[in-house]
Amino acid sequence: MPIMEISIIPVGGETPSFSQAVKEACQVAQNQGLKYQVNAMSTVVEGNLDQLMSVASNIHRTSLQNGNNRVITHITIDDRQDQEMDMETQAAKINGDLS
Amino acid sequence: MPIMEISIIPVGGETPSFSQAVKEACQVAQNQGLKYQVNAMSTVVEGNLDQLMSVASNIHRTSLQNGNNRVITHITIDDRQDQEMDMETQAAKINGDLS
Amino acid sequence: MPIMEISIIPVGGETPSFSQAVKEACQVAQNQGLKYQVNAMSTVVEGNLDQLMSVASNIHRTSLQNGNNRVITHITIDDRQDQEMDMETQAAKINGDLS
Amino acid sequence: MPIMEISIIPVGGETPSFSQAVKEACQVAQNQGLKYQVNAMSTVVEGNLDQLMSVASNIHRTSLQNGNNRVITHITIDDRQDQEMDMETQAAKINGDLS
Repeated sequence: MPIMEISIIPVGGETPSFSQAVKEACQVAQNQGLKYQVNAMSTVVEGNLDQLMSVASNIHRTSLQNGNNRVITHITIDDRQDQEMDMETQAAKINGDLS
Repeated sequence: MPIMEISIIPVGGETPSFSQAVKEACQVAQNQGLKYQVNAMSTVVEGNLDQLMSVASNIHRTSLQNGNNRVITHITIDDRQDQEMDMETQAAKINGDLS
Repeated sequence: MPIMEISIIPVGGETPSFSQAVKEACQVAQNQGLKYQVNAMSTVVEGNLDQLMSVASNIHRTSLQNGNNRVITHITIDDRQDQEMDMETQAAKINGDLS
Repeated sequence: MPIMEISIIPVGGETPSFSQAVKEACQVAQNQGLKYQVNAMSTVVEGNLDQLMSVASNIHRTSLQNGNNRVITHITIDDRQDQEMDMETQAAKINGDLS
């Protein structure tokens, strides 16, 4: 299953803070029933390709609808056909060996 | 109109070169009738949000179908509601002042 | 304090897996005494700007020295002057409200 | 020679426009004598790894010094050991076949 990382940056708001936009993005993922994890720099989401592209599109659109004049959305999709992938296993592969 | 930057990296192929994957990506954009520009690091595409997400999804899927075991696709969408945007104008705003 | 997200992709290796390259990257951050967190898509690191650029450069260089013919390194730096930032607080701001 | 793509987003300014920040970034690259190309979504720069990391650091720092409370800088470095690379050749490999 592909894994997506998404980060959304509203530009031109009065404040440098955009945690509200990130919370709204997580709400969109929650509403679409997708599993996600938030870290300091982005949100990681699991789903098939159609689900991921749909949630990314809705996250981007929601931020514009919520009054942001300009929104820059960064999306990275990691997709593997030779092996199953999920968020926990990917991180555990690294953390497991380093602890 | 939003502008998208997309780059696609096939991982695990025999060669470090992936210009073939980039050509296939441009072909997908061409087939969908979208305007695009190629630079050394990515491809910039113009379209509405639905068109951009559709072409990004098809570019990603095509690369997997063409035999790449793992594909990492980076997508950035810049979308502005207070002003029209297009590829030429955005670059010209910068280049015009610096020449 | 700025926060950095870094992901490193070796291209042209025999296998689609690159968890070894990510472990080596974490080792570089550990050797430089910097705090980091690994998630499924990237590694988040804390430090001042010089420390972050130095560790990013060393991570990139190490991957080339370890036999990868081509390496693509993605770096994002989030830097705020009006408020202190750290990895835990940034994630907690979001997770706290959504649980 | 590695190639870098850099984009800089000031967050929290009064206006959604940040072409001024991009011009300042290009000025930094010019002052350091590096070859660069501007496209609608980013600036592509040529140089060795130390030159690229130095110019990226200075671009980021300059934007903070010019009064932006928060700056998010995205850097991608593509580095190949089996073959020489430069901006023109990379783009021509793709464009040449598609025209």
